Amino acid sequence: MTEPLAQGRVIGILGGGQLGRMLSVAAARLGYRCHVYDPAPHIPAADVAYAVTNAAWDDQAALTAFAAAVDVVTLEFENVPTAALDLLEPLCPVRPGRKALAVSQDRLAEKTFLRDLGLQTAPFAAVDRAEDLAQALGQIGAPAILKTRRMGYDGKGQVRLESADDIASAWAAMQGAPAILEGVVPFTHEISVIAARGSDGAVAAFDPGENLHKSGILRETRVPARLGAGQRTDAILMAANILNALDYVGVLGVEIFVTPQALVVNEIAPRVHNSGHWTQNGCAVDQFEQHIRAVAGLPLGDGQRHSDVTMTNLIGDDMDKLPDLLRAPGTALHLYGKPDIRAGRKMGHVNRITPLRG
Amino acid sequence: MTEPLAQGRVIGILGGGQLGRMLSVAAARLGYRCHVYDPAPHIPAADVAYAVTNAAWDDQAALTAFAAAVDVVTLEFENVPTAALDLLEPLCPVRPGRKALAVSQDRLAEKTFLRDLGLQTAPFAAVDRAEDLAQALGQIGAPAILKTRRMGYDGKGQVRLESADDIASAWAAMQGAPAILEGVVPFTHEISVIAARGSDGAVAAFDPGENLHKSGILRETRVPARLGAGQRTDAILMAANILNALDYVGVLGVEIFVTPQALVVNEIAPRVHNSGHWTQNGCAVDQFEQHIRAVAGLPLGDGQRHSDVTMTNLIGDDMDKLPDLLRAPGTALHLYGKPDIRAGRKMGHVNRITPLRG
Repeated sequence: MTEPLAQGRVIGILGGGQLGRMLSVAAARLGYRCHVYDPAPHIPAADVAYAVTNAAWDDQAALTAFAAAVDVVTLEFENVPTAALDLLEPLCPVRPGRKALAVSQDRLAEKTFLRDLGLQTAPFAAVDRAEDLAQALGQIGAPAILKTRRMGYDGKGQVRLESADDIASAWAAMQGAPAILEGVVPFTHEISVIAARGSDGAVAAFDPGENLHKSGILRETRVPARLGAGQRTDAILMAANILNALDYVGVLGVEIFVTPQALVVNEIAPRVHNSGHWTQNGCAVDQFEQHIRAVAGLPLGDGQRHSDVTMTNLIGDDMDKLPDLLRAPGTALHLYGKPDIRAGRKMGHVNRITPLRG
Repeated sequence: MTEPLAQGRVIGILGGGQLGRMLSVAAARLGYRCHVYDPAPHIPAADVAYAVTNAAWDDQAALTAFAAAVDVVTLEFENVPTAALDLLEPLCPVRPGRKALAVSQDRLAEKTFLRDLGLQTAPFAAVDRAEDLAQALGQIGAPAILKTRRMGYDGKGQVRLESADDIASAWAAMQGAPAILEGVVPFTHEISVIAARGSDGAVAAFDPGENLHKSGILRETRVPARLGAGQRTDAILMAANILNALDYVGVLGVEIFVTPQALVVNEIAPRVHNSGHWTQNGCAVDQFEQHIRAVAGLPLGDGQRHSDVTMTNLIGDDMDKLPDLLRAPGTALHLYGKPDIRAGRKMGHVNRITPLRG
């Protein structure tokens, strides 16, 4: 176990979006200060961060000064360029480590890692050239989804193929980027497990949540998820398995498809996760604090659920609902302070709590 | 009702201690930024505030610039000098308003206000000169407590008189400051009601908490308090009565002695209150957010209790208990990031939640 960070020490966060904002608040609750690094000039985390560096990912002087100003580095965003991590890592501990980032920055590496761990995934094949796609589709079958290997999120960089007729247009949409073709899993619903691993190797998981997406963006997470007791245990063990294999420190999100036959891992995110926001109002210790505890070398806390929760994202015009949401019973708002409302933009979320069932 | 503040607007907070720190976090959750004003150079609120002005209460240029930089002013500290408020008030809305501050800055004005409202208080008498004290003690009887009229908190500026023999030393301890002699109320326990009033005049109260003091400092608040249903209702109505009489906007704490015969108001605090910290882990909307909602012209939220809570302050060496507290079940830590541990200094607090009884 790493020596815990003392009160007043500084945690560096790569990325200053809403996840960095909520990590900063959790760090403050434990007596730490946060220094956020982000290339964008107006970032949600700036309102609650102790310090902000506004510089590009390839600004070596800024990265070096950032490393000198903080005691440990973590991230809210898995696609931090490799060169930036190469520069930071010898200067300062980076948690979670490079293995987790390398795996999750590349969909092919991620799927291969999961399969090698013995976990079930959608069938997949690498597509590096146009010729590969026809062969991959023959192997996997339609429908299937072609995805860029890197930098995809919220449904971006993805094209669905209904038949071989879609091969040319789908490949064109990749714009030459290395891709992966994934089979479509006929799932009944999607769940996610938000799990944490401390610097002492201890693992803790929150109760699985059930996710509802719309247009590729998470709309809602409900806890508890529809799962049998065995499935629930299996899902948590899968997450623990992944954390241990990556020698992970921090919180990781695992999205899982539930089918009548199996639990199929969809993807992992090496960070706090939108589907874990319900923990802010459902547990004494939430996902943001659990992550900060791990990164700071503190023991993990008690993430037991005290209430059932439905988390709903506020996206774009959903902000029109604020007057009603402010008055709704058992309802906690979490707004990100983004000045401009834009379609598809996550503006905040709402946690609605109800007493534990059964 | 005031027009609600828009996302990204700035709330000014007079005072940057732990209360200002937790107000800043609550404001961020609603999409607002906080600008904190405090004469002290190192303040807990600075870690999570959008901006900080570090200037004296009599620095007119700094106060004027502060008023220009914020959309509304509130406070975490009722003893802001009158001259500073006189300067700010024409420039910017100040919530709660002057009446509440005038009443709570002066123990004699406060007791008189409460008595005039028909509420029960300890017997009291003004003591402006040495001669007044003998007469006041004759009227009230021993034991009694002599207190400075202004600037007292956490048991400071108070002397207990067991008999007329203590008159000379007690008066000397006041160092010439105007004082008030208060009778001792033989209470079974102390409770507090944390109540809020919105800019629309709506009133909401959290469940009363039961307070345990040690050496004049709050050690613990337990919710629910030991109260009959009628007492509980009466306590909340007393708080509502006070809020309405003061045309109050924001959160107010009311400390009440419970005696076999009556509920006796001890004192009021025109701000969020240490005995309301349990709401952070016991309710969907806590006292800090309730205060920010009122100040920002938003409707009050649902402060219904979802769990029983025991809040324990971490004072000075209590920080030695951190390793155990970090691992304790159902336990949420709230540390203030104060670098130096000093005896009697509030370093943080812990909320321990358990399921609702009954």
